[in-house]
Amino acid sequence: MIDAEAMQDAITNHRAEPLMFDGLEYARLLEPVNHYPRGSVVLPDGSVVPGYPAIGRIQSLEAGLPRQFDQPFWAEEKIDGFNVRILRWEGRVVAFSRGGFVCAFSTDRVPDFVDLAVFEAEPDLVLCTEIAGPDTPYLEGSTPRVADDVGLFVFDLMRLGQPGFVPQDEKFALMERHDLPPAPLHGRFTPADTEALGRLIRQLDAEGAEGLVLKTADGEHRAKYVAGGSCINDIRVCSEQLLDLPPEYFTNRLTRLAIFLAEHPPAERVAVERELGAALLSGLATAVDKSRREGRVGHTYRCRFRERAGAQRFIDHMQATGGRHVRFLPDTPRQEANGYWLLEFERLFDRITGTLASALAGDRQYD
Amino acid sequence: MIDAEAMQDAITNHRAEPLMFDGLEYARLLEPVNHYPRGSVVLPDGSVVPGYPAIGRIQSLEAGLPRQFDQPFWAEEKIDGFNVRILRWEGRVVAFSRGGFVCAFSTDRVPDFVDLAVFEAEPDLVLCTEIAGPDTPYLEGSTPRVADDVGLFVFDLMRLGQPGFVPQDEKFALMERHDLPPAPLHGRFTPADTEALGRLIRQLDAEGAEGLVLKTADGEHRAKYVAGGSCINDIRVCSEQLLDLPPEYFTNRLTRLAIFLAEHPPAERVAVERELGAALLSGLATAVDKSRREGRVGHTYRCRFRERAGAQRFIDHMQATGGRHVRFLPDTPRQEANGYWLLEFERLFDRITGTLASALAGDRQYD
Repeated sequence: MIDAEAMQDAITNHRAEPLMFDGLEYARLLEPVNHYPRGSVVLPDGSVVPGYPAIGRIQSLEAGLPRQFDQPFWAEEKIDGFNVRILRWEGRVVAFSRGGFVCAFSTDRVPDFVDLAVFEAEPDLVLCTEIAGPDTPYLEGSTPRVADDVGLFVFDLMRLGQPGFVPQDEKFALMERHDLPPAPLHGRFTPADTEALGRLIRQLDAEGAEGLVLKTADGEHRAKYVAGGSCINDIRVCSEQLLDLPPEYFTNRLTRLAIFLAEHPPAERVAVERELGAALLSGLATAVDKSRREGRVGHTYRCRFRERAGAQRFIDHMQATGGRHVRFLPDTPRQEANGYWLLEFERLFDRITGTLASALAGDRQYD
Repeated sequence: MIDAEAMQDAITNHRAEPLMFDGLEYARLLEPVNHYPRGSVVLPDGSVVPGYPAIGRIQSLEAGLPRQFDQPFWAEEKIDGFNVRILRWEGRVVAFSRGGFVCAFSTDRVPDFVDLAVFEAEPDLVLCTEIAGPDTPYLEGSTPRVADDVGLFVFDLMRLGQPGFVPQDEKFALMERHDLPPAPLHGRFTPADTEALGRLIRQLDAEGAEGLVLKTADGEHRAKYVAGGSCINDIRVCSEQLLDLPPEYFTNRLTRLAIFLAEHPPAERVAVERELGAALLSGLATAVDKSRREGRVGHTYRCRFRERAGAQRFIDHMQATGGRHVRFLPDTPRQEANGYWLLEFERLFDRITGTLASALAGDRQYD
């Protein structure tokens, strides 16, 4: 709980931002307040949906497992999507982004994946989920676990007003009882199971999956571990915006990949080298080509809404926050034969647009 | 000229730094003074060796030539080394780095490459040169134009106290008369010679050369243009220090490479992709390996001096400016059979050392 007075203080001191979504008043924390982390959501009665905590990453199974775990743990698949927390508040189901905004897209689509009756039986439940697939409004890449549109994967449960996560046993029982779609579960391991986990991560790597999140039975001790291929994949889907992302996006993934390859030497090193080179150059070639033909570099995102009003709320949010970088395509949203409203928009990558335009115009550049 | 009073002001205001090299008092400019750029060197009588100006880069021949040139120009080879300005002052020949320090290494080695009689005939001459090769104290990579040790290439001449460069005709005549070693000259072109220059840059690319500097007859209008392979080469020789260089080092070269490939499509795109991937991964694999075996990542540099005292002056300078990142190997400098003093030292890459040590120890990392 954060009481009204503390909230007013937090808003005055720019530690919280009051927001409104379709009549729902709420606030998101920009900085920690009362020990709740940034990204937490404060509802009108002061109850708090805690921000989803960052999970530390290990980069070596051999060194990381014994160092981070002194008890068995579950290995759940890490899905490459975006994280939303879903709950029911005064009769409506809403999904909050990592930053604490209502996500209009996810909020619209939840009923496609979750039987909302779960909130009748468990009114205080918060579903921590990953939404992923080829057609999301935020992601350039996808996951092999979703062929079309989007999918939703529940990986944690919280209870409104209670700290921490629901323990693993209870989580699995609740998910089964309410038919919640789980992130794939890959079994229970001990810190000595380096070899078995090595085989598992190489298998996931071959399937194009992102990696694993390891969690103790109480749900409190955690670490993530990703496959080398997912580093190359991240680079591939973002190389078109090489100059617009923080450069650490690329250097971190390259470093991670090198450490992964040292621990899991590939059968064909040359194939990995080629894949990495192609990942960088394919997006950049597309960018050069777009710059030549259209004078700008951007990416077109598409996503589907159940309701036209949902699409409009998404548009309103993007126009309020995305500014001039976002351009909705004409004739969008439009209803498809299946009844969904298809939204398409382009996000412009300013820096690479400017750099390429100047280079291809023959300017001299100083670096 | 910068008079004594102006220099005193500049030093007080931290626009200039007074320095001493083996009894020679001089100052380097940290900021522009009297229109002389940073990197300029001020000698005891107030005469100024201007800082070597940055040369703008074009990234497209087709667009860049007509935009940057309205007259014919010379194409001189750009050698991948470091830039020093060499002159004689009160009977001694000294070489200044781009930043305006005396370079103890270059100063020691100049007589190996330049007949110092040139300064009898032309006492006010300043040689603008590139020093390159496998054994320099600054560079990880080398150039195909130097097989062993180092080489020196004169590419511009200035006259002490006079603005601008010596015009091309006079430069060529002086260089021939005094047998100064030139950067390879590849001919004279016009802004319409896109195709001929395209063939030339692809030829240089195949030879592993860095690229071209284009200069009009008066020496005043200039642009540089580099080959795609040199971008990959730069990445290869520095990927071991991926986290210690500004990330733009890598993103700029990747962007440049993509633009080059769009203008000069390679016969085998797959070969280029592989080469780029290998360039990134080879250095990182070496870094992981060094981290595992030695607990640190660094690069060992070696260079040769004619005189033991020259080596000692270099050591003194590095210890004054390079700090704890530099470790001279025991038993260095030592005299080789050929009479030269061989110096070896390691430069430590702090950030990648720390990141890899933590990752390989099994720490959790948050990014």
